[in-house]
Amino acid sequence: MPDKRIITLTTDFGYEDPFVGVMKGVILKINPGAEIIDLTHGIRPQDIREAALTIGLNYKYFPDNTIHVVVVDPGVGSGRRPVLVECDRHFFIGPDNGVFSYIFKKEHDILDVIHITSEHYFLSTKSPTFQGRDFFAPAAAWFSKGVNMSSFGERVTDYQTIDLPFPELTAEGTVTGEVIQIDRFGNAITNIAKADMERLEGAGAEAEYRIILGDRAVPLKDFYAQSADRSLCAVVNSSDNLEFFIYSGSASKEFSISIGDRVEISLIRK
Amino acid sequence: MPDKRIITLTTDFGYEDPFVGVMKGVILKINPGAEIIDLTHGIRPQDIREAALTIGLNYKYFPDNTIHVVVVDPGVGSGRRPVLVECDRHFFIGPDNGVFSYIFKKEHDILDVIHITSEHYFLSTKSPTFQGRDFFAPAAAWFSKGVNMSSFGERVTDYQTIDLPFPELTAEGTVTGEVIQIDRFGNAITNIAKADMERLEGAGAEAEYRIILGDRAVPLKDFYAQSADRSLCAVVNSSDNLEFFIYSGSASKEFSISIGDRVEISLIRK
Amino acid sequence: MPDKRIITLTTDFGYEDPFVGVMKGVILKINPGAEIIDLTHGIRPQDIREAALTIGLNYKYFPDNTIHVVVVDPGVGSGRRPVLVECDRHFFIGPDNGVFSYIFKKEHDILDVIHITSEHYFLSTKSPTFQGRDFFAPAAAWFSKGVNMSSFGERVTDYQTIDLPFPELTAEGTVTGEVIQIDRFGNAITNIAKADMERLEGAGAEAEYRIILGDRAVPLKDFYAQSADRSLCAVVNSSDNLEFFIYSGSASKEFSISIGDRVEISLIRK
Repeated sequence: MPDKRIITLTTDFGYEDPFVGVMKGVILKINPGAEIIDLTHGIRPQDIREAALTIGLNYKYFPDNTIHVVVVDPGVGSGRRPVLVECDRHFFIGPDNGVFSYIFKKEHDILDVIHITSEHYFLSTKSPTFQGRDFFAPAAAWFSKGVNMSSFGERVTDYQTIDLPFPELTAEGTVTGEVIQIDRFGNAITNIAKADMERLEGAGAEAEYRIILGDRAVPLKDFYAQSADRSLCAVVNSSDNLEFFIYSGSASKEFSISIGDRVEISLIRK
Repeated sequence: MPDKRIITLTTDFGYEDPFVGVMKGVILKINPGAEIIDLTHGIRPQDIREAALTIGLNYKYFPDNTIHVVVVDPGVGSGRRPVLVECDRHFFIGPDNGVFSYIFKKEHDILDVIHITSEHYFLSTKSPTFQGRDFFAPAAAWFSKGVNMSSFGERVTDYQTIDLPFPELTAEGTVTGEVIQIDRFGNAITNIAKADMERLEGAGAEAEYRIILGDRAVPLKDFYAQSADRSLCAVVNSSDNLEFFIYSGSASKEFSISIGDRVEISLIRK
Repeated sequence: MPDKRIITLTTDFGYEDPFVGVMKGVILKINPGAEIIDLTHGIRPQDIREAALTIGLNYKYFPDNTIHVVVVDPGVGSGRRPVLVECDRHFFIGPDNGVFSYIFKKEHDILDVIHITSEHYFLSTKSPTFQGRDFFAPAAAWFSKGVNMSSFGERVTDYQTIDLPFPELTAEGTVTGEVIQIDRFGNAITNIAKADMERLEGAGAEAEYRIILGDRAVPLKDFYAQSADRSLCAVVNSSDNLEFFIYSGSASKEFSISIGDRVEISLIRK
């Protein structure tokens, strides 16, 4: 059954409206063999940056050849291009507005970006407000049936990227970064990866880190339950990123942490 | 594999409770080949009107022969009838309380409504509070396995409809309607379709419309991003309905728009 | 196709973050034939008791041989054990922290609990913060492919249980219990089952019950719509538990009912 293919959906459509259900109907009408998985529909409305991080950090947990549809699209109906991207044995479909920035910035053997111009892979109802339904869902469904990438349009290299907050290593031996996400539990995830911390001169298994959030020093733990009280702590989380938490509580609420808050890490010299 | 069949679910059960998961378990126990798709579970609690519009406007995006289960049912446990509806090559199962009103009011070649009385297609646990689980899910599952409509009960013609707000064309050359839905983005969707606007005498490709929401005149745009500031605008949306929006913001919140707000459209004579 | 197997997910991950989507990716990468159903992801953050009740009351609606993954895990990353449970022709995977307490306390022919120690069934990324992704999803996926229970580790009998609030029958002929759940509609579900009420001396088809919530007497109805006004009423609900409601409104909000509120039931002697 060659049409059995996983299609993931990542949108800012939420769960109150029928938008996501309709996209699934459109896909199944074209390819009844598609298996559709929600990555999340909880992206903050029109937050391209959050969409870029969410798909960029998580696509790799899906099987090779998965097709990832991303629809966070404040410019829907304007001239921005629909694109089909191949990268790292995964495929991505969405607006060319920066939602694939994180993927574009990683190192790859293959990176192909197609401007989708073959309108016969779209629905005939080309509404100016819901191209998740009219463009991206049907294009993904046709692609999942085995249509060649080249049939969708021409290769482009001037695809859009947005500035993503990447951490910096300063001359003084400090890694600076910021909070990029607050999760459901109130944990505050930073853009500083374990690998960034290990770039500090003298870092190693024995290294002790000084972690500063705003003007507060925060101790590093190995796991959540290692903190027995409700003080603010840090941990290297499941994406290998530094994250602030309080045990059994919301760090974001109790310590007023917001996206964009500055973080500094240096080594404690002994 | 004749048992492979799409069943959609539309309810007011939300996402916090296990109600929807349990309905899926019940369906798969009867027909392991069923493919279950959530249209939405975000219907406002017990809002029959919203359910009627949601299923009525969106079922057509699913493949022919899809079975749509709708459970918004303030009268659960009382005498109201469970029904199985065939319409437009789609099938619908739910309470006979008006949730299919929008479907009933459209023109069709075929419209068959069966009062489901064959209780062996229900679970033996006939609770008075969760007939989504005990009646509608199992009936849909049995029907998806190929049981004939006539096996479920007798045809009825006195099915229930509720008043849905349809727009009116006045003698003075004005279409009047109302806001019927607020979506996640704060967009305010009206019951006035593009076709209603085109019924105005003199309407055509060159027509300019005067759109009044409350006592405010609102300009019509072709797509969201055509509005560069945060002023209130209108657009013909993906359902071909007139919708109010502000670009990258919530029209509903910033302009205090509510369901039921009155809208008037006329032609600007030049 | 022996790998076709239902896996349900019950977590406190909510719907805003990509956690659940990632778990599904991990499962499908190992067993593309798995069919994944969300029971709910709306468990209150880190509420082991709610998780125990939710899975304990609802697993039976799924087909035999379903695998139920439960991840509500405040101690993630600490030493608590991952377990695989067989009970009542269903299988359960999750942390050994009490989430299976309700299942353990029921009577069964078979109850087998395996401490999962075979780390080759885990992902190689063993993060201390997301073992739903690294331990439980992959273990469930391998198990769904037909791996024997005994391959996952050794049987244990000292598995963890938490105190669940069970009702009591007092010497004075009163059943006492409490509110254990508030659902989306504001209905307040108690831990008092119909069977508990029927243990009262003299109970029978003709019995009349005196139901006291706090210091308020509440009449018992057969179904929701039997109450025409907005007074507080009780009903035996779809889980056969006593539940407080108001018709077309939120009992919890309008009568300030909270989890833990005490309930007393006795017979009215005539």
